[in-house]
Amino acid sequence: MPKENKLLIFPGSGSRKFTTAICRYLRVKPGHCDAKHYAEGNTFVRVGENVRGRDVFFVQSLSYPVNDHLMEMLFYIDAFKRASANSVTAVIPFFSYGKGDKKDEPRVSIRARVVADCLEAAGVDRIVTMDLHAPQIQGFFHVPVDHLYALPVIADHFKRKVTRNWVVVAPDVGAAQMANGYAKALGAKTVIAEKTRKGPRARASVNRIIGHVSGKNALIVDDFTITGGTLIATAEKLKEEGAKNIHAAVAHGVLTPGSCALVQASPIKELVITDTLEYRFEPLTKKVTIVSAAGLFAKAIRNIHQQTSVSQLFSS
Amino acid sequence: MPKENKLLIFPGSGSRKFTTAICRYLRVKPGHCDAKHYAEGNTFVRVGENVRGRDVFFVQSLSYPVNDHLMEMLFYIDAFKRASANSVTAVIPFFSYGKGDKKDEPRVSIRARVVADCLEAAGVDRIVTMDLHAPQIQGFFHVPVDHLYALPVIADHFKRKVTRNWVVVAPDVGAAQMANGYAKALGAKTVIAEKTRKGPRARASVNRIIGHVSGKNALIVDDFTITGGTLIATAEKLKEEGAKNIHAAVAHGVLTPGSCALVQASPIKELVITDTLEYRFEPLTKKVTIVSAAGLFAKAIRNIHQQTSVSQLFSS
Amino acid sequence: MPKENKLLIFPGSGSRKFTTAICRYLRVKPGHCDAKHYAEGNTFVRVGENVRGRDVFFVQSLSYPVNDHLMEMLFYIDAFKRASANSVTAVIPFFSYGKGDKKDEPRVSIRARVVADCLEAAGVDRIVTMDLHAPQIQGFFHVPVDHLYALPVIADHFKRKVTRNWVVVAPDVGAAQMANGYAKALGAKTVIAEKTRKGPRARASVNRIIGHVSGKNALIVDDFTITGGTLIATAEKLKEEGAKNIHAAVAHGVLTPGSCALVQASPIKELVITDTLEYRFEPLTKKVTIVSAAGLFAKAIRNIHQQTSVSQLFSS
Amino acid sequence: MPKENKLLIFPGSGSRKFTTAICRYLRVKPGHCDAKHYAEGNTFVRVGENVRGRDVFFVQSLSYPVNDHLMEMLFYIDAFKRASANSVTAVIPFFSYGKGDKKDEPRVSIRARVVADCLEAAGVDRIVTMDLHAPQIQGFFHVPVDHLYALPVIADHFKRKVTRNWVVVAPDVGAAQMANGYAKALGAKTVIAEKTRKGPRARASVNRIIGHVSGKNALIVDDFTITGGTLIATAEKLKEEGAKNIHAAVAHGVLTPGSCALVQASPIKELVITDTLEYRFEPLTKKVTIVSAAGLFAKAIRNIHQQTSVSQLFSS
Amino acid sequence: MPKENKLLIFPGSGSRKFTTAICRYLRVKPGHCDAKHYAEGNTFVRVGENVRGRDVFFVQSLSYPVNDHLMEMLFYIDAFKRASANSVTAVIPFFSYGKGDKKDEPRVSIRARVVADCLEAAGVDRIVTMDLHAPQIQGFFHVPVDHLYALPVIADHFKRKVTRNWVVVAPDVGAAQMANGYAKALGAKTVIAEKTRKGPRARASVNRIIGHVSGKNALIVDDFTITGGTLIATAEKLKEEGAKNIHAAVAHGVLTPGSCALVQASPIKELVITDTLEYRFEPLTKKVTIVSAAGLFAKAIRNIHQQTSVSQLFSS
Amino acid sequence: MPKENKLLIFPGSGSRKFTTAICRYLRVKPGHCDAKHYAEGNTFVRVGENVRGRDVFFVQSLSYPVNDHLMEMLFYIDAFKRASANSVTAVIPFFSYGKGDKKDEPRVSIRARVVADCLEAAGVDRIVTMDLHAPQIQGFFHVPVDHLYALPVIADHFKRKVTRNWVVVAPDVGAAQMANGYAKALGAKTVIAEKTRKGPRARASVNRIIGHVSGKNALIVDDFTITGGTLIATAEKLKEEGAKNIHAAVAHGVLTPGSCALVQASPIKELVITDTLEYRFEPLTKKVTIVSAAGLFAKAIRNIHQQTSVSQLFSS
Repeated sequence: MPKENKLLIFPGSGSRKFTTAICRYLRVKPGHCDAKHYAEGNTFVRVGENVRGRDVFFVQSLSYPVNDHLMEMLFYIDAFKRASANSVTAVIPFFSYGKGDKKDEPRVSIRARVVADCLEAAGVDRIVTMDLHAPQIQGFFHVPVDHLYALPVIADHFKRKVTRNWVVVAPDVGAAQMANGYAKALGAKTVIAEKTRKGPRARASVNRIIGHVSGKNALIVDDFTITGGTLIATAEKLKEEGAKNIHAAVAHGVLTPGSCALVQASPIKELVITDTLEYRFEPLTKKVTIVSAAGLFAKAIRNIHQQTSVSQLFSS
Repeated sequence: MPKENKLLIFPGSGSRKFTTAICRYLRVKPGHCDAKHYAEGNTFVRVGENVRGRDVFFVQSLSYPVNDHLMEMLFYIDAFKRASANSVTAVIPFFSYGKGDKKDEPRVSIRARVVADCLEAAGVDRIVTMDLHAPQIQGFFHVPVDHLYALPVIADHFKRKVTRNWVVVAPDVGAAQMANGYAKALGAKTVIAEKTRKGPRARASVNRIIGHVSGKNALIVDDFTITGGTLIATAEKLKEEGAKNIHAAVAHGVLTPGSCALVQASPIKELVITDTLEYRFEPLTKKVTIVSAAGLFAKAIRNIHQQTSVSQLFSS
Repeated sequence: MPKENKLLIFPGSGSRKFTTAICRYLRVKPGHCDAKHYAEGNTFVRVGENVRGRDVFFVQSLSYPVNDHLMEMLFYIDAFKRASANSVTAVIPFFSYGKGDKKDEPRVSIRARVVADCLEAAGVDRIVTMDLHAPQIQGFFHVPVDHLYALPVIADHFKRKVTRNWVVVAPDVGAAQMANGYAKALGAKTVIAEKTRKGPRARASVNRIIGHVSGKNALIVDDFTITGGTLIATAEKLKEEGAKNIHAAVAHGVLTPGSCALVQASPIKELVITDTLEYRFEPLTKKVTIVSAAGLFAKAIRNIHQQTSVSQLFSS
Repeated sequence: MPKENKLLIFPGSGSRKFTTAICRYLRVKPGHCDAKHYAEGNTFVRVGENVRGRDVFFVQSLSYPVNDHLMEMLFYIDAFKRASANSVTAVIPFFSYGKGDKKDEPRVSIRARVVADCLEAAGVDRIVTMDLHAPQIQGFFHVPVDHLYALPVIADHFKRKVTRNWVVVAPDVGAAQMANGYAKALGAKTVIAEKTRKGPRARASVNRIIGHVSGKNALIVDDFTITGGTLIATAEKLKEEGAKNIHAAVAHGVLTPGSCALVQASPIKELVITDTLEYRFEPLTKKVTIVSAAGLFAKAIRNIHQQTSVSQLFSS
Repeated sequence: MPKENKLLIFPGSGSRKFTTAICRYLRVKPGHCDAKHYAEGNTFVRVGENVRGRDVFFVQSLSYPVNDHLMEMLFYIDAFKRASANSVTAVIPFFSYGKGDKKDEPRVSIRARVVADCLEAAGVDRIVTMDLHAPQIQGFFHVPVDHLYALPVIADHFKRKVTRNWVVVAPDVGAAQMANGYAKALGAKTVIAEKTRKGPRARASVNRIIGHVSGKNALIVDDFTITGGTLIATAEKLKEEGAKNIHAAVAHGVLTPGSCALVQASPIKELVITDTLEYRFEPLTKKVTIVSAAGLFAKAIRNIHQQTSVSQLFSS
Repeated sequence: MPKENKLLIFPGSGSRKFTTAICRYLRVKPGHCDAKHYAEGNTFVRVGENVRGRDVFFVQSLSYPVNDHLMEMLFYIDAFKRASANSVTAVIPFFSYGKGDKKDEPRVSIRARVVADCLEAAGVDRIVTMDLHAPQIQGFFHVPVDHLYALPVIADHFKRKVTRNWVVVAPDVGAAQMANGYAKALGAKTVIAEKTRKGPRARASVNRIIGHVSGKNALIVDDFTITGGTLIATAEKLKEEGAKNIHAAVAHGVLTPGSCALVQASPIKELVITDTLEYRFEPLTKKVTIVSAAGLFAKAIRNIHQQTSVSQLFSS
């Protein structure tokens, strides 16, 4: 009896809308499953349909509340495997613990590795994610990681504008390689903000912009923003140095309470984010634009399912 | 150079007071460490003193918010191991996911095994815990588990009362063996409440009490209570069947919002819990008595550290 | 070249007849293989046909001699895997070490976990078994476990009788949940025998029956019996308390030498067992009825092979 | 508190006398533990004293009944580890499944590797054994193996005789390297018997002796004998070719029922074995001499415990 | 969408010609991939085509430079797995570290096990190899090993000659079983050279030939030769003892610089090797004949791919 | 018997001089061991003294020939573990495969993770290394990594000069954080060179210097250099932009053939490297200065051995 091969995509409770968007793109219905987060703090999950011998995709961003969404994902993976799924691909639009990728202080945890180990201990077979904080995080996993980039959809948004004469701004040296990618897409140059912190978890301040921005339209890019703080500090420095219109774009917009008001009050004219994080601490303000990464993920899932190249798809 | 062997006990953020109580008993100072749970949902930990080559005890109940406390524990274990601790003993006064110990429905996770696997993936070397929901959970771990019981401290509380003529009540068959233990300690008999549920996670109701309770003082015992619901339903049935004073005792009293009011309004005269859960959703009401399990844990830690028998200590 | 997908079922030397019954049900021939247990105590196995890339089912009860059957199973699993089988499902009608599921004394082994670890170390990919002593034993495995219940075939046997007015008797609290299942199937109530032991491995005695049995037909149910001792002690107490016809039913009837005579001489009118254990220490006496579980296992194997739900099949 | 370091040696039920001999040599008392092999076939073990933080030695030959002794060993190792022993050294005087060291037929198991994996899955930390069937078996283990040789005690036995003019006979090419060792110790030459079998498990016959034996005293050496068959066939051929006195020596003498009578009736004048196998299928006959290997094991255990070289001890 | 199942065979840089020969036999094109060994000593690999969901064969002999070829293989395996290959079969025509299969001295490594562990850590799923130095090396792997023998192609070469009256010579006892195989194929008898060394890595000398060779044509067989030293020493002894034509055959001919000249000057008339090692330290001299093992490997790969028996193919 | 605790440090063949320097600093003698790299390409290692129960340090840079040194290290680790060492710390002054820390092209290997997995598979217990190419590589290991920095010894070298008015130059954005460290030590500012490549392994060219260097003394810093190419290209650009004296400093100076001549001919006035790589492809030219990192490693080893903090030592 040949193995049935219908595409099976299940939504985690942190990515219901995103999964719906992916499924709409692929013209399939999301799988039946439900998770409960009880008042006392326990999480419970149940898969609602047969997955025996199937290749399952489970979609869950590590959005707020991060640890609940992570544990829910681990329990789902276990549930799928114990229900005899052939493989489980964890689609993690936003991988939250990316900053915990090194020991930048004595006696701290490498949290992204711990998360990777938990996912593998639970039995995950493949990861699909987007704009990891550091590309080395792929190496924290033994299982294959398909690593997507928001660049095509975000760059497309800016290419559609009449605005030209861009300079792309990396808010710190870690973002410089990403900034070069955007610069290439927009036919622009890159400048780098020099950010300093008193300690690894202290508030950053921007000392100077290394490179020329005067008279240019600036696009600050980063993998994610939590409070908008770095973007705003960079924007203020850019303003000082004579930049004209200042835009910002991040793959993952966390935006904790108060962030939107600060962005609204800042020299940033527009903040572009994708829809990888659907939990919103508060309503977004007008300056925030959302572009959808669901199509990217849908194509990646389709190619994985059809066993064609994923890199080929996104490399042009 | 001989290995220094000072007792090192670190508090997780879910067990600060309990760790202080243990340390006071053992006349040591808690180790320096701090955990941060950021607004966006990430958890960060840092160990504040040298642990190289040391045998570390880390104390953390899986109390509310359960998943945050769990992830914090995993990160701490990783931090200790990467800081070259010789061994890490996770002291988990309350192991929350004990109910997830089996597949009682199709396609669910065995969550307690997932938690055990995460702890072992993070590098834990030993577990100390109390009144697991099922003794089989020890078998979910490869590492040694020292399993303590609240019975001595709770039974002691009741033995000090003038009340006699007890009957011990198991609120369901799963608690019957524990009830026998209490019955033996109090020189009493055991009866069992017949609890039924429509499904594995539905509200329970008590059909009948199997055994005689009329004219007796009843002590309902269980490993934990979340809402007090089962205890109250049992107490009401006991009242109906003519029991006199009705007490209840559980090792772990979670007591979600509203629970205390319900207990207060119920036929339960006194609900005894231990201090394994220090997070309180709301102030406890008068009917709730706390007895401390810190001494039990302190003795267990001391014996582990001195490599003498733990079972011997608690078996009489 | 498409993977051939003929059903391949191999018999262990402890389940030759049971495998034949399964194969007859599924209209396939058992696979060729042979095991030798040499005079000096070594076990040797050999698979007699090509299994490259195939999904193999291997059937072996952990019946007498238990350890020989277990080692034979481990060697077969290794032989299948080294012969490049795609997967090996161990069908274990009776999983003998189920009582070793916890540390109920200091410094004992959790033997069921050791057995699970050995099976996984040998390379097993899935377990199919029936009426585990505790449902938590599923959690001792990382691989999926399909857990069947003898209840449908045993309950069916009793439903076909003219006898009505049943009460179902759990011989101890551990069997109460199973007893509730039978009670539901027979439209009866459950009572519980209170069993006490001096130590974890001492002979049990039945103190009292919690609940009313007078004038009723009693059906004592349990997962397995070795000597019939607990069943007989319970039956005697039931007799005392006025029960009418007393039947007993267990999924797994080990029945060591002398057991049948004791059952024959007891108040038990009929002891129903299944055919999961085909080794017989001595001829069964008239009171023992065997009902076959082979059809249950056959359907489970078929569904696994066809990747349809197993839980669905047995849950009604 | 410094770790106590008393030598702790526990006997498995297959090596009670051998353990006593080791302990007497080292002037320590064997540890308290007991194993039960129940009528229905289950094995149960219990450790009778505190082993927390201790380095435990557990002695068990894989003698008849082999699989029972193996499972008992696995359960003991698990019990020691769950009781928080610091390390468990399995002292296995006779490692029975040594012949299962390769796939010499299609679709068989590499049984010695399965046994090694089970021991490691149970948690063993080190192996001490003697005269493995093939030295490569050390490589089946990840944990360190201390490999002893019976040669010193057996050669000593022959050096004390007045008999001289020895030729050492390898009963097949696999034993030739061992034979060279004995030849060197006795100042003799080696000859090799050419053994043929129809299949990997068929009865062997000796075609010819490669080398000269006429007029010499022959010592046939091997790692173990089960039935004496190969030794006797070799002896008969040696007789034919004019050898004078024919002796045989093996590290491990299994000697299944009937073996002794065959040896007694054969041209073998004396069969020397060690005491690694204490189970005897039948009383030994006069031709069989036992020399003790307990001193060798005792010295190895002492050196391991004192962390001095084991190889140094036995290499001269 | 059905899984495409085209045969995908990739060449390592140590087996380019051999892979081409295999592919020609199977009428497929080798896969695209390239490896770079940089001047500073680092190795880099890249797979040039999509392998998602595919069963990949990667061919690499552990020829000179051995460690570079080994690391290249590990990196390729990792690259295939991270590119989501379904499985990777490492085809290792010559497995170089076979002599490191035991601890024949104190405190050495069991190098073949280390190599096996590295291959498994990198994610290999199956090994295909030929004439391992010891059959036990299969047991160093958990994954299946398909073990081929050069015997059919080498014996065929000799059967085509008019020369008859062969005696097959094992240059040491370790090669005796292989010699018996050749003897059977040629209808000949086996003799054994007695080789002695002062230490495990000292130069060997041949003391004597055990068996009669006078007037016979001798074929010395072994699994591999590095310098030809053992073969030449054996040939000289054979000459002394009156052998007529002396041939030698090994599966793997390493032949370090100077070896060919020594063979050329020796009594060996012809040295037959296969093409498993394509790196040549120097041009081969006339006495060396190469027969191809590519057909054997091609058939094995085809059968593995088609999931038919490999043992069946080569056992007749 | 107390565990002896003498410091045991063994040299790999790639770090003999460096180990001698460490041992001289610590006033201990290097351990006895020897490695052979045979003509045919195999590597063999042997430990020359008892290490039973000891905590062993093994020092080996992954210098040319990299893969030979790596395999030698794996074999040594295995040899130490099989010889019952309590723990093995691999001291890897230069970890060569650091650039292979991510998938920056489709279907490549994450080579640094493969190397980490091999080290862990061989049994390593701790890593000590210096200036990893990316700090995330620590997260490729499960075992603790003590990560040292050459900064103190290199900065010290420059602080001793009379030259002031430094600007520190990061030759690409990846080196910017390191440059900030040096800038802080020298009381200077950082500038960043913008390096572009056509592909991940193409030759880099420097487009521009982001920041002001005119009239300043420039110190270019990086973790390692292979050919000096990036340093020279950066120096030329700095010259163009008006920098005065141009120095360069890297922790690890590989310097393949021809590199020194190029440096000598370049605007670089002095290239400072440490002694982590003792293999030299050719004699160093005058512009190259070596400062020793042996003292740093010696102190780290001493602190690890004495179980005091390593981070504390190097963090000021």
